[in-house]
Amino acid sequence: MRPHTLCLARNPLCSRMKVLLFDTFGTLVDWRTSLIAVLTEFGRQKGRQLPAAEIVDRWRAAYEPMMARVRTGKLPWTDLDSLHRMALTELLPEFQLSDLTPTEIDQLTLGWHQLSPWPDSVPGLTRLKRKFILAPLSNGNFSLLVDLAKFASLPWDAILGVDLFKHYKPDPATYLGACELLKVSPEEVMLVAAHNYDLKAAQSLGFKTAFVARPTEYGPRQSKDFGPEGAWDFVARDMIELAERLGC
Amino acid sequence: MRPHTLCLARNPLCSRMKVLLFDTFGTLVDWRTSLIAVLTEFGRQKGRQLPAAEIVDRWRAAYEPMMARVRTGKLPWTDLDSLHRMALTELLPEFQLSDLTPTEIDQLTLGWHQLSPWPDSVPGLTRLKRKFILAPLSNGNFSLLVDLAKFASLPWDAILGVDLFKHYKPDPATYLGACELLKVSPEEVMLVAAHNYDLKAAQSLGFKTAFVARPTEYGPRQSKDFGPEGAWDFVARDMIELAERLGC
Repeated sequence: MRPHTLCLARNPLCSRMKVLLFDTFGTLVDWRTSLIAVLTEFGRQKGRQLPAAEIVDRWRAAYEPMMARVRTGKLPWTDLDSLHRMALTELLPEFQLSDLTPTEIDQLTLGWHQLSPWPDSVPGLTRLKRKFILAPLSNGNFSLLVDLAKFASLPWDAILGVDLFKHYKPDPATYLGACELLKVSPEEVMLVAAHNYDLKAAQSLGFKTAFVARPTEYGPRQSKDFGPEGAWDFVARDMIELAERLGC
Repeated sequence: MRPHTLCLARNPLCSRMKVLLFDTFGTLVDWRTSLIAVLTEFGRQKGRQLPAAEIVDRWRAAYEPMMARVRTGKLPWTDLDSLHRMALTELLPEFQLSDLTPTEIDQLTLGWHQLSPWPDSVPGLTRLKRKFILAPLSNGNFSLLVDLAKFASLPWDAILGVDLFKHYKPDPATYLGACELLKVSPEEVMLVAAHNYDLKAAQSLGFKTAFVARPTEYGPRQSKDFGPEGAWDFVARDMIELAERLGC
């Protein structure tokens, strides 16, 4: 039931691929640099010098255990906007920011809706879109991903936030839920990500995989995902090289 | 939690609107002319002169009672692709087409994924997209709407097919489900449609409404929706005029 002209690059894997799904935070947008700018500007407005990079790194680190609690059922389904807000709220006392108003906490949490893309993301996606259906498959919620696409001009064909499935990656329900909505089989889909754990989960379900390293995603203290750690179908320097490799 | 710059036309209604949702079949794409072309070409390939317009009109008329059976719970949830296929299959004997193969029935059903837009649809949406979040809210399923957008170059920010909600319009669950996913309240959303029944349901839930007449949608025997039948917020000749009225 799918009429698309496909990307027929020389690689035989291409001939059945119809959909490219993308991890988003880190893979397509530079959340760390963007949020450091948000925190720095917020501090300036408040007349306070904030350790912006440290806050952002702690913020990112703090929500991951919360997501794990949702994944393991210790917390009921809670979307990423809410986890970001909870994580920031818990962090504020450490940075002498307990006096922030709820509106200010909302405003900072909204920073996650306005992240800048890596320079190759938009030109690469624009080329890939000519021949494939493109969508994010991100742990972000639907509305966050819509805002982010609008802000960063990401040229999606559809938005797949994990609140559609009420599961976080790497739960199989997210990858398989995307296939069900798009009416494609896993082998017709490739996941593109800067994170090996994500590709590993997708590959185990039959997805094709492409790794694009983002060695500065986590800043100077990045400790992982400098290179491919599995037998991924494609490893590309950036989204433009991936488009070339796929004959787009 | 929404950072968008809004369309501040003189009409005060504009100031709170963030999202425009669009009915799709008839409102944005000319399903009848497109499917008549598909049936005519199919007949040519089979060496048979088919009454293409009559088949298409009967096909459209036949799936609506099926959709009503899903809405009233007499049929379990069945998506539009499946209803289209069932309706066509039931219709084939009337037109001496009982010998069609399952693949041929699939192929014709896929015609609903490749419908041409009205001439104003793409330029109008392109202008509206500068200031609003745009998505279809159609009784089509997610994958159908993704294909249709790709085929007709409809520049959506997100896809909202009713299989996300497992209800058909005009059930409130569809309109309210869209608001929930996008994290907006009904009064921040306007439904744009060529069908008064759809606008009536949306308005009763607090949506803003815009009517665009498509007097040739159903061909020479069209019997309804020639003009507005409610106190809609906007009535425009086409999507380009709607963009102008909204200051886009």
